[in-house]
Amino acid sequence: MSNQKLKVAIVGASGFTGSELARLLLNHEGVSIEMITSESHVGKPFSDLHPQFVDRLDIPLVSAEEVNKQNLDVIFLALPHGVSMDFVAKWKDSGAKIIDLSGDFRLSTKEVYEEWYNKKHSYPEGFAMAVYGLPELFADKIKSASLVANPGCFPTASILSMAPLFAKQLIEEKSLIIDAKSGLTGAGIKASATTHFSNVNENFKAYGIAGHRHTIEIEEQLGGLAGSHTTVQFTPHLLPVDRGILVTAYAKIKGEMNQEKLTEIYREFYQDKPFVRLRNQSPGIKDVRGSHFCDVFPVWDARTERVIVVSAIDNLLKGAASQAVHNMNLMFGLSEAEGLNQVPLKP
Amino acid sequence: MSNQKLKVAIVGASGFTGSELARLLLNHEGVSIEMITSESHVGKPFSDLHPQFVDRLDIPLVSAEEVNKQNLDVIFLALPHGVSMDFVAKWKDSGAKIIDLSGDFRLSTKEVYEEWYNKKHSYPEGFAMAVYGLPELFADKIKSASLVANPGCFPTASILSMAPLFAKQLIEEKSLIIDAKSGLTGAGIKASATTHFSNVNENFKAYGIAGHRHTIEIEEQLGGLAGSHTTVQFTPHLLPVDRGILVTAYAKIKGEMNQEKLTEIYREFYQDKPFVRLRNQSPGIKDVRGSHFCDVFPVWDARTERVIVVSAIDNLLKGAASQAVHNMNLMFGLSEAEGLNQVPLKP
Amino acid sequence: MSNQKLKVAIVGASGFTGSELARLLLNHEGVSIEMITSESHVGKPFSDLHPQFVDRLDIPLVSAEEVNKQNLDVIFLALPHGVSMDFVAKWKDSGAKIIDLSGDFRLSTKEVYEEWYNKKHSYPEGFAMAVYGLPELFADKIKSASLVANPGCFPTASILSMAPLFAKQLIEEKSLIIDAKSGLTGAGIKASATTHFSNVNENFKAYGIAGHRHTIEIEEQLGGLAGSHTTVQFTPHLLPVDRGILVTAYAKIKGEMNQEKLTEIYREFYQDKPFVRLRNQSPGIKDVRGSHFCDVFPVWDARTERVIVVSAIDNLLKGAASQAVHNMNLMFGLSEAEGLNQVPLKP
Amino acid sequence: MSNQKLKVAIVGASGFTGSELARLLLNHEGVSIEMITSESHVGKPFSDLHPQFVDRLDIPLVSAEEVNKQNLDVIFLALPHGVSMDFVAKWKDSGAKIIDLSGDFRLSTKEVYEEWYNKKHSYPEGFAMAVYGLPELFADKIKSASLVANPGCFPTASILSMAPLFAKQLIEEKSLIIDAKSGLTGAGIKASATTHFSNVNENFKAYGIAGHRHTIEIEEQLGGLAGSHTTVQFTPHLLPVDRGILVTAYAKIKGEMNQEKLTEIYREFYQDKPFVRLRNQSPGIKDVRGSHFCDVFPVWDARTERVIVVSAIDNLLKGAASQAVHNMNLMFGLSEAEGLNQVPLKP
Repeated sequence: MSNQKLKVAIVGASGFTGSELARLLLNHEGVSIEMITSESHVGKPFSDLHPQFVDRLDIPLVSAEEVNKQNLDVIFLALPHGVSMDFVAKWKDSGAKIIDLSGDFRLSTKEVYEEWYNKKHSYPEGFAMAVYGLPELFADKIKSASLVANPGCFPTASILSMAPLFAKQLIEEKSLIIDAKSGLTGAGIKASATTHFSNVNENFKAYGIAGHRHTIEIEEQLGGLAGSHTTVQFTPHLLPVDRGILVTAYAKIKGEMNQEKLTEIYREFYQDKPFVRLRNQSPGIKDVRGSHFCDVFPVWDARTERVIVVSAIDNLLKGAASQAVHNMNLMFGLSEAEGLNQVPLKP
Repeated sequence: MSNQKLKVAIVGASGFTGSELARLLLNHEGVSIEMITSESHVGKPFSDLHPQFVDRLDIPLVSAEEVNKQNLDVIFLALPHGVSMDFVAKWKDSGAKIIDLSGDFRLSTKEVYEEWYNKKHSYPEGFAMAVYGLPELFADKIKSASLVANPGCFPTASILSMAPLFAKQLIEEKSLIIDAKSGLTGAGIKASATTHFSNVNENFKAYGIAGHRHTIEIEEQLGGLAGSHTTVQFTPHLLPVDRGILVTAYAKIKGEMNQEKLTEIYREFYQDKPFVRLRNQSPGIKDVRGSHFCDVFPVWDARTERVIVVSAIDNLLKGAASQAVHNMNLMFGLSEAEGLNQVPLKP
Repeated sequence: MSNQKLKVAIVGASGFTGSELARLLLNHEGVSIEMITSESHVGKPFSDLHPQFVDRLDIPLVSAEEVNKQNLDVIFLALPHGVSMDFVAKWKDSGAKIIDLSGDFRLSTKEVYEEWYNKKHSYPEGFAMAVYGLPELFADKIKSASLVANPGCFPTASILSMAPLFAKQLIEEKSLIIDAKSGLTGAGIKASATTHFSNVNENFKAYGIAGHRHTIEIEEQLGGLAGSHTTVQFTPHLLPVDRGILVTAYAKIKGEMNQEKLTEIYREFYQDKPFVRLRNQSPGIKDVRGSHFCDVFPVWDARTERVIVVSAIDNLLKGAASQAVHNMNLMFGLSEAEGLNQVPLKP
Repeated sequence: MSNQKLKVAIVGASGFTGSELARLLLNHEGVSIEMITSESHVGKPFSDLHPQFVDRLDIPLVSAEEVNKQNLDVIFLALPHGVSMDFVAKWKDSGAKIIDLSGDFRLSTKEVYEEWYNKKHSYPEGFAMAVYGLPELFADKIKSASLVANPGCFPTASILSMAPLFAKQLIEEKSLIIDAKSGLTGAGIKASATTHFSNVNENFKAYGIAGHRHTIEIEEQLGGLAGSHTTVQFTPHLLPVDRGILVTAYAKIKGEMNQEKLTEIYREFYQDKPFVRLRNQSPGIKDVRGSHFCDVFPVWDARTERVIVVSAIDNLLKGAASQAVHNMNLMFGLSEAEGLNQVPLKP
């Protein structure tokens, strides 16, 4: 019944994750979108910012101040890094559970955060509260969390590509190289030289070589799985497409390996994970576009004695908005797959 | 309950309309996909042809011969022009209603068909049976039809751009020019020079100038609305995108016109049509991508005394698969919008 | 010999026309690039702004103040509309000939300019001086000009598509409709929502319907050719490609017409114009990309009694930079084709 | 003078390398294109196959039989792998020098070829004759060669990214991983599911994991430089762009390294190589599009103790056609840069 629906707020309407959250939640049967906030567009219909919603979601945007005045069940923070932390501090006792899509609580400690994000953290108490919201690894913790740090897009694809091997402590330390490629929406909605069509279209380049902040997020999570420190070489690249991340991961294995054994390790690890698809051919990002799937394809190269794993996600969905909805489903005891049944949009 | 679901078959699995039908029907609560046929891939999982369906729709493809052996409610024909007609002839008395997505029964008569399609029609009796499946114009007839001819993609966008003015007999004869632009999926899944990436990407061109067969389909429908013969200049162009049709239509008006009056005519005509959105700014094809919407934007140019109407659809959905589902909903008394609630995928 | 080379300055380094001018002039044997100006990047190597020039053109950018201090032969103004006019006023007696790539002197009078550009013109005396730099129509005047107004990109493609018929006064007044499509570089290098990759990629839309300022430029030129006032319906659209304009022009003809006659009119008009190619099939924008060609394809539709002409150019070249070089060649008595021999880059 | 120009034939007109060779040679002052062959299009103008050449190169295509009847200086073989070998055998004593753009003579021996290409080699004597045509490494040998094996596109970018370090024997064996990305033209002009627009556009995927035949070409060349056997992990990916290869190479270094030292090694190695540009920021493929440049950007990651080198080329030019012209210039004592002065086309 309608009055039993979860009451949700989306804080931060202007970006891609805000609009994708709205798209998913609008067709989620267990949810009612109570408000969407935007400080710079108060009073405007949401569909003015995102015309795909005309006639479907025309509610006026409100100030984040309104969040306090409602009995909400969930607050999604679709805000830039460095902005979420203040809202978490403010709303932590509001009675609503918080799912933060920024990077503010993904790392282990204030110190690590400040080193890699190069800014002060204003609410370090949050690190202890926050659960890393990768359902394939931490479903139990997520179920009882009141604050979930929704993983980064690159880390989601990267961790899922290698988790089965790290969980079995099979990866040689310092051998992991993650060559990652992302669609342009990963760079956000802000107009800049980086996002100008003529710099992206028919182009392709690496960026953040040797220092991208998603590196530490991947290292912490994979290291945690293996129970030991892990060093990762991570290089992101910018693809001339809207959506999609493809990760090509290379690593050396401890002990004997062959293709059959490798496939079996992955099959077993992901057997009851409905949104990870173990593929038997090299997946493309379009195979998962518009969906919550992560496609994974592990290959053993006997010649070089190296494992190569390709994984593909939609960076705005499994890498952001649908992962947040998945977390919400877990946090409130809903069916895990509710609202996440989209078949990828291809072509 | 499951046993009350409509039993459907999709005949023709390999193309884009077949896969899009499957995508929509899979999440349609009133439907059960009983079989998908493909003569060249019998026995293969459907997801082998369309990997976006891995783990979601892996049923083996069957021969069209299987259609006869089942008690089906609906048969969707997702076949090339010239192929559907034989299946309609064969299955017309099977008890199942037929929705044909090809061009075989869209025109008025065998003679017109043979002139514009330049091939013999093997089942001319079908023209009398077939209802033109454009729900915004013919919902009542569709409700009682046993054979629906699903409109062409260009005609759908073209007719909806001009229907309100033709219905009021406001358009000067011979003045209508439709400059139409389509994404590449309109050219089909077959590999050819036309569909080779390097001929499409960063390119744009007109084709079928002065003789495209969608011309007559538009002329018959708009002429029918106005109650008089209509001549249309129709020029299609090929866009370097996957999906989407944008139509820019130009026409001279009989009598006085102004912007306010023009907007009001459209508002009134489409007021209870949930999938036509009257826009107040120029729509892009991405505003409707992945959805059943047709966005319409009429402009009065007082300087040239001409009306210019822009309309946008997703050619694979409102121009094909979702229109077919809409027709099915009407034919079986389901809620008109069942299974068609997708918000456009943007970006 | 080097000391006989024309000394040129490019004023305005940051945009696309500035960099394309530099690219063409660098390989032009009759020219020496003396300076490139940019007020906001003084001292930086040109190749810092446009990395394609690394090792080829690393000269430091200078202030426009430097223009006065040199004996220049040609000054190219690659500046925004409204900015060029002041520099023309300032440098008109400098001894250098000026080729202005902005819209500041393309129209006939101050009044027309101010109506359509909606801003004051600070140097109206320039209108009498300026020659409209479309070599196919005005080569003789260009040869003796000291100020050339380089045509707009849309007007270049539009005028060349219809000039042979207007020159023969064959077009019915008010019947001409120009449906034009441009690549994104036509919107300039400035970062904005309009130029953000995610708004352009996989998208397509019309803009400036019924009021784009290129309308009047086309009307004045085609009207001038015919010797009578001309009204044009002009609608631009934005293509998800970097470069290229395709124009689809529709018009009614006075008197009898057929395909053979139509082709002959075009053949004759363009027979000694080396950069207009009369095509016998529908041209794509990629057929001319990276070149100075304008491809033209006229079709007679006997059914609708209308002429349809498709034309294609590279908006940054024939629509801007290479046209400017062509004008320079004419103004200085060089070979018309010097530096303009590039074969289109395809694929 | 015209009669001193080199007489060249291009054998194989239909593909991308054939048309790109024609484009470069047409504007090369030391060359006269005597004939272009195509067995399936004899008699058709070359510009019918490649409309960018209309009015520029309309010569009729001839059969390869005609090659024997002329006194040619150079024969370019723009043919598929496995086809060139027979023509080399046939024309080796014709007096013309041969530049083979296929893979038929790139490897060291018949045995290696047959293992990696999985087909019989019909002219194994050619391996001893052939010089590997990478001018940055083998200019001297190329100068006196009568048969040049033009390098593969991936190997060109890969080898140039790592040559300075292998030449100094600084790379740890088995540590080199090359993650390579290519535009679609690398897949050739043949229409197939692989080259269908809808499978490429907005998509990205890896292919040939662990077994691509360019692996051995890279291993042989880099191993040769170092004077020892080398194992390379090579993974190609398909980019949704027409042109361009970007290589991201990762390797472990023997001994101490730092950024300054690394940059210096590259600076020194490439100091007199006019077409390799040592960049100080991450290059994109568009920075080199349409040009003969290879941009190289080496990075030392002190944290992971690994070198990461990014290199970018235009696969159809530095990876094929312009490299062939460069080889021709060397073989005939022309200026190294003749006909290769194109500034990259950007945007």
